[in-house]
Amino acid sequence: MSHPFLSQDPLIRPHRPMMALVLGNTMLSTVPGISGAGPTPEKTLLTPILDAELVTTGAITSVPARPNTPTGCPTPATITRSMVELTGIAPVLINAGLAHTPTVPCLDVYGRPGGDPRKEDAVPQVAALFERGETVGRLLSQYSDFLMLGECVPGGTTTALCVLRALGYEASVSSAFAKNPLGLKDAVCREVLARIGETGAGEPLEILRAAGDPMMPVAAGIASTYAGEILFAGGTQMLAVAAVLKALGKRVPRLATTVYVRDDPSAGFVRTVADVGTAAYFVDPNFAGIGHVGLARYCIGEVKEGMGAGGALTLAYLMGHEPGEITRKVFDFVSKYA
Amino acid sequence: MSHPFLSQDPLIRPHRPMMALVLGNTMLSTVPGISGAGPTPEKTLLTPILDAELVTTGAITSVPARPNTPTGCPTPATITRSMVELTGIAPVLINAGLAHTPTVPCLDVYGRPGGDPRKEDAVPQVAALFERGETVGRLLSQYSDFLMLGECVPGGTTTALCVLRALGYEASVSSAFAKNPLGLKDAVCREVLARIGETGAGEPLEILRAAGDPMMPVAAGIASTYAGEILFAGGTQMLAVAAVLKALGKRVPRLATTVYVRDDPSAGFVRTVADVGTAAYFVDPNFAGIGHVGLARYCIGEVKEGMGAGGALTLAYLMGHEPGEITRKVFDFVSKYA
Repeated sequence: MSHPFLSQDPLIRPHRPMMALVLGNTMLSTVPGISGAGPTPEKTLLTPILDAELVTTGAITSVPARPNTPTGCPTPATITRSMVELTGIAPVLINAGLAHTPTVPCLDVYGRPGGDPRKEDAVPQVAALFERGETVGRLLSQYSDFLMLGECVPGGTTTALCVLRALGYEASVSSAFAKNPLGLKDAVCREVLARIGETGAGEPLEILRAAGDPMMPVAAGIASTYAGEILFAGGTQMLAVAAVLKALGKRVPRLATTVYVRDDPSAGFVRTVADVGTAAYFVDPNFAGIGHVGLARYCIGEVKEGMGAGGALTLAYLMGHEPGEITRKVFDFVSKYA
Repeated sequence: MSHPFLSQDPLIRPHRPMMALVLGNTMLSTVPGISGAGPTPEKTLLTPILDAELVTTGAITSVPARPNTPTGCPTPATITRSMVELTGIAPVLINAGLAHTPTVPCLDVYGRPGGDPRKEDAVPQVAALFERGETVGRLLSQYSDFLMLGECVPGGTTTALCVLRALGYEASVSSAFAKNPLGLKDAVCREVLARIGETGAGEPLEILRAAGDPMMPVAAGIASTYAGEILFAGGTQMLAVAAVLKALGKRVPRLATTVYVRDDPSAGFVRTVADVGTAAYFVDPNFAGIGHVGLARYCIGEVKEGMGAGGALTLAYLMGHEPGEITRKVFDFVSKYA
């Protein structure tokens, strides 16, 4: 193959690896056109719960739903689940603030869904969520020496855009849509930045309170106290968390995501990673050559990432699984739904 | 010392020990006189949350409360917390069904508080809770090779009595009161058994549905799938879970608890342990000789056990801490509140 499976070697060989996924909602995902993570804007609120169910049990049985996007792409959660089956590492699911009750056990910090940052402070309980994230980070430290930390927040690329810009980055963000609705996201972001300007929020946690989502303070808190090596699994949303950590003067984790995020020209991901002063590893699961029409759509810019999929692929590789074995496992799993 | 710290050596030397505590409520604790785990019957519903806060953070700050019983005994949670500080092992807290929202992160299975089994099925969602317990057991297996599993359910000795008797044991149970309100518990139990007789509940999970509390199916599920060594931390409540596992034909864990449970003449603990066909290890933290008047009251039969205290002391010992060091640590911690 001409392209390496992983863009660079992060030089991490975990002995006791753990994966954790921080789930949350933001009311922004119910704004028509913002989020591609669900069949309708309202139903995007259910996506983290269905993803959690799929990753934990291997199937969605609580509602009649298939883990495919409206255009027939397997969801990122199917990729994450296939890696759970390959590696035996089941992620710790963390409920940072969901609109609906999960159908599988979650480590719950007892937050609430994020509000619409155009109208109100999005995460009023940001200080408590950061602190509970710190508690979770200490807890997970006891039971692992490496943490792959990802997220699932429909609409979260828009909160990420708001947070990155409020922190001073000239950022753009990625999208689950092939055609990134950047005009809409920009419009939301301008309104949010205007409101932040009025309230005078300037400290990193104040910015999260005003414009973020509940995943962000929880993930930042976890990264602040986690004692072992940590990689952030994801694209622009986890990058926003990394930027918050930098602004707080804390350790800034590196990222692991898919080449589809890197290759999204609208996101400018690589530039913002450099601006934040961290590094990203890009995994190429060769979905173009796998022989699955839905997975191939990732390569033309659909879905791209989510539910820690890029990190799950990376973790399997770091644990010693061969690229061919990894790609075949994804193909076999998603073929059950084809 | 004439008495050994631990009654027998369980021959377990954990490499990757984990402790987990299953928290739940039963409406029986609000029946006046049933539970000593709280300043008033209604406030017993808060006890698991305050215990969780103390064990996790080292202090109760969410409400103005001291971790002492009305008679001035340090609560069992203070013992558990002191062992967290000694060993560095922070327990995984599991929310099986609580009346109030926890103030610290919990692994939540999204159950509900148990109903009053005299009037209604106590745990209607028993099958889902057992299954989610199985999921938790698989998850915890990945990150540890030994599990000390305890509980905190105010009023739970009464549900334990109902379950043990419904399973056919001539059991009595222990109590946090020095004077065990056995007449009251017996009266509740007769009503519950009469109702079970009418409904015809006979299978172990049917009995839990009718007469148990949410902790029981969750703990039973965890023990069913946990891959490593497991000890149950607690007295009659965990023994009821062990009896359910035996009735289900599953592995029956051994127990670790305090000598104060063994020496409660009203509980007949040792006999029921033998009837269930398992073994129990009894830890003697020498609270009589420690020089703390509140801890000494354990020796005259108050409190006795709870929040995995006996298991936490046992775990510290199995991890190589000396008895004198363990007892001194408990004394130092509770003295902060004296």
